[in-house]
Amino acid sequence: MPFSRIYYLYLSPNRAYIRKLKNVLGFVPGNIKLYKMAFRHKSVAKTIKDGVKNSNERLEFLGDAVLGSVVAELLFKLYPYKDEGFLTELRSKIVSRVNLNQLSRKLGLNEFIEYDARMISYPNKQSSLLGDAFEAVIGAVYMDKGYAFTREFLLNRIIKPHVDIHMLEVTETNFKSRLIEWCQHFGKEIQFVQVANPPGDSSKLFHVEVVIDGETCGFGKDFNKKSAEKLAAEKACELLKIFEVEEFSR
Amino acid sequence: MPFSRIYYLYLSPNRAYIRKLKNVLGFVPGNIKLYKMAFRHKSVAKTIKDGVKNSNERLEFLGDAVLGSVVAELLFKLYPYKDEGFLTELRSKIVSRVNLNQLSRKLGLNEFIEYDARMISYPNKQSSLLGDAFEAVIGAVYMDKGYAFTREFLLNRIIKPHVDIHMLEVTETNFKSRLIEWCQHFGKEIQFVQVANPPGDSSKLFHVEVVIDGETCGFGKDFNKKSAEKLAAEKACELLKIFEVEEFSR
Repeated sequence: MPFSRIYYLYLSPNRAYIRKLKNVLGFVPGNIKLYKMAFRHKSVAKTIKDGVKNSNERLEFLGDAVLGSVVAELLFKLYPYKDEGFLTELRSKIVSRVNLNQLSRKLGLNEFIEYDARMISYPNKQSSLLGDAFEAVIGAVYMDKGYAFTREFLLNRIIKPHVDIHMLEVTETNFKSRLIEWCQHFGKEIQFVQVANPPGDSSKLFHVEVVIDGETCGFGKDFNKKSAEKLAAEKACELLKIFEVEEFSR
Repeated sequence: MPFSRIYYLYLSPNRAYIRKLKNVLGFVPGNIKLYKMAFRHKSVAKTIKDGVKNSNERLEFLGDAVLGSVVAELLFKLYPYKDEGFLTELRSKIVSRVNLNQLSRKLGLNEFIEYDARMISYPNKQSSLLGDAFEAVIGAVYMDKGYAFTREFLLNRIIKPHVDIHMLEVTETNFKSRLIEWCQHFGKEIQFVQVANPPGDSSKLFHVEVVIDGETCGFGKDFNKKSAEKLAAEKACELLKIFEVEEFSR
């Protein structure tokens, strides 16, 4: 056992925290400050310089990018005969807030997150607190251990045991029905309106807007009208932060 | 000189192509098929299986992700006291179609691209042909040589010599004036309309739509009204494929 490992696990003033983190991540973290930052929601962060806070938002930016790259490669190799539209859609299901929130809970990251309960209404299903922390942890692992390690960690510790890609592949995330259900629940009027091509666009794309109580909440375009509606519904779900359907379903 | 290198440069039936490519990329490519695919626009691609074509679109998906990750790390380290909003905005300037098209031209990738001139109107400034091929080449390098190599290649061969990050930082990509100018040029009526919050959203965000000739072409929201307009204009520029202002400027 190398000395640094002995130090971290048995001698460091942070040893209790490091051991607990090791149980979750499966490896001994090196730079513990990175992980502490990854779990710090902006509601409890302090300003460090020039108005920038020591919250997890910067690490989330980095982790989001690294995760996107690792998942892109995985899907590229896993589906050699699928086009980039398929790959893009499947990746966005894998890295969706809903999925990352669930992963975060499964791994037990929720026990590490620091946040100010007076400022944010967590736990609730519309919160992205868990998924954000998940991405920030990926950023921390990357800064701590590099790309190759993070890639292995994601593939072997997270994706293989916890993500059922083939199920996600066949599961249609039905944004349209999710949105319609939400509108029914809250007594909102919803319309999918096909609009003319924008000026300068002579393509045969369908342009569809989702209009809820008279306001445009989403827009989509595709060569297929149903797909354009789906895209518009997805945008509206994003805008209105309608992540999970169970919360308001009858 | 290792034998594989001698073979590729002097003996392979592809040696002329490989040498030319080496001059552009700065290294001897390994799997030449990947690079040929990276330069193949879908207009000249053949269907290989299950309707999937051997075009550069899949590699573009992969390269886009790898580029995003490398640039994210670069900015994360280069700007330790900037928040994630700044990092996100600067990254999107660096990986914008305009910038990638320019990089592609600077590197001379245009000489390699295969496309069907009857099907796409290239060269024109609204085409994303060059930038798409640039991303696909990144994907090819990644598949050929791995992440560490691709990262070094991007940082030392592409970004350091060709991308002026600090200039991009201060250059305001003024989507609003670009869009207004475009509308004037084509005699379109443009309005920025502030709309009420969507149902369920009680935040103090400003919601702004760009309406061109009566049709919503973009939407933005921000705590600052000007920023919401800027975001809406950016979306509209994206939708209408208004990449560069010179083309229609007076």
